[in-house]
Amino acid sequence: MKNKQFTSNEQQSLTEIIYHRRDIRGNNFLNAPIPQPILDKILDAAALAPSVGLSQPWEFVIIRDQQTKQSIADNHREENEHAEQAFKDDKKALYRQLKLEGIKESPINIAVFYKPNTQPTLGQNSMPEMGEYSVVCAIQNMWLTARSLNVGIGWVSILNPEKVKATLNAPQENKLIAYLCLGYVKEFLEQPELEMLNWHKRQPLQIIDEKY
Amino acid sequence: MKNKQFTSNEQQSLTEIIYHRRDIRGNNFLNAPIPQPILDKILDAAALAPSVGLSQPWEFVIIRDQQTKQSIADNHREENEHAEQAFKDDKKALYRQLKLEGIKESPINIAVFYKPNTQPTLGQNSMPEMGEYSVVCAIQNMWLTARSLNVGIGWVSILNPEKVKATLNAPQENKLIAYLCLGYVKEFLEQPELEMLNWHKRQPLQIIDEKY
Repeated sequence: MKNKQFTSNEQQSLTEIIYHRRDIRGNNFLNAPIPQPILDKILDAAALAPSVGLSQPWEFVIIRDQQTKQSIADNHREENEHAEQAFKDDKKALYRQLKLEGIKESPINIAVFYKPNTQPTLGQNSMPEMGEYSVVCAIQNMWLTARSLNVGIGWVSILNPEKVKATLNAPQENKLIAYLCLGYVKEFLEQPELEMLNWHKRQPLQIIDEKY
Repeated sequence: MKNKQFTSNEQQSLTEIIYHRRDIRGNNFLNAPIPQPILDKILDAAALAPSVGLSQPWEFVIIRDQQTKQSIADNHREENEHAEQAFKDDKKALYRQLKLEGIKESPINIAVFYKPNTQPTLGQNSMPEMGEYSVVCAIQNMWLTARSLNVGIGWVSILNPEKVKATLNAPQENKLIAYLCLGYVKEFLEQPELEMLNWHKRQPLQIIDEKY
């Protein structure tokens, strides 16, 4: 299928999937298991992401064990107690009410790591972060593919990444890029929850013509 | 369209788009202009990306000017001369033959910046890189949307990012995440070019069960 041309219907499908993707938190996950072929499809999409110099510098830890999840949830609770201190007054009160993760409520967690190459990597000399960015491209492929399979993903970033590595016995050189919670959901909200709660509004894109 | 459920046809469209996305270089761009509504669709997809705490920390510079492109191309040439030194023997010879960018051959370049928030951002306390990662999610949305519109994108990372900022008069606090080249293409290759040239092979995903 060389040089495939996509139709406007196929284009529209992608736009809808992008539009309806949401970050899913604990109050919205169902306890239903994710069948292995569905999980495989989500992971296959990661493998097709762009990566700098085709280095594919990613590793995925699939977590179902309750004890492991509890350790990650404890890590989150501790970091979240620090995090709320940054906010003041109304924002702090709202922050405290937010449920920001679904570690224990989701059937599958996936820790996604950047594994640095030991050899020089094409395209990574001037911008060393390109390896991490490749892993993020893989995660976005997973997120959209999950949504198209009506599976929700939540990205938990309020975690001490070194403690996550310790919990998972991850090699020292690995860097945690994302901790994802996957599961079927009660609903995909019409808008991002933080928009509905007026935490932030959607802004028009900042587009600069030619130069600042 | 609350809680939209996608069909297997819609799911399949996404998989095909992900499968047929390629990184496009200079020998493959057509000189045909990109109509504004097509460019708008690609940018609209960026605005719908996930971002940490809904911070939307992205800015986009649209570049069509030949002089600006020449300055970026000079930046690339200089960095690329350094870069090739990292490779030895056969790899170095192959590296020298590769055309790794399409800065001047593509009708539109887009510099994508991370603009750090001046306020604390929900979800960015423990993992400060989350702001940059949000911008990468936006880029992957753009890349897939472009492909679905049969428009190619190449991500140029062999650039001195500080010199790119100087060329574009970018604010000091901004960080260059990606320099993208956009245009219609002669062909979307069946495999990544680096795979066809045996630079690297596609590897099976490293999937770890529960713990390392």
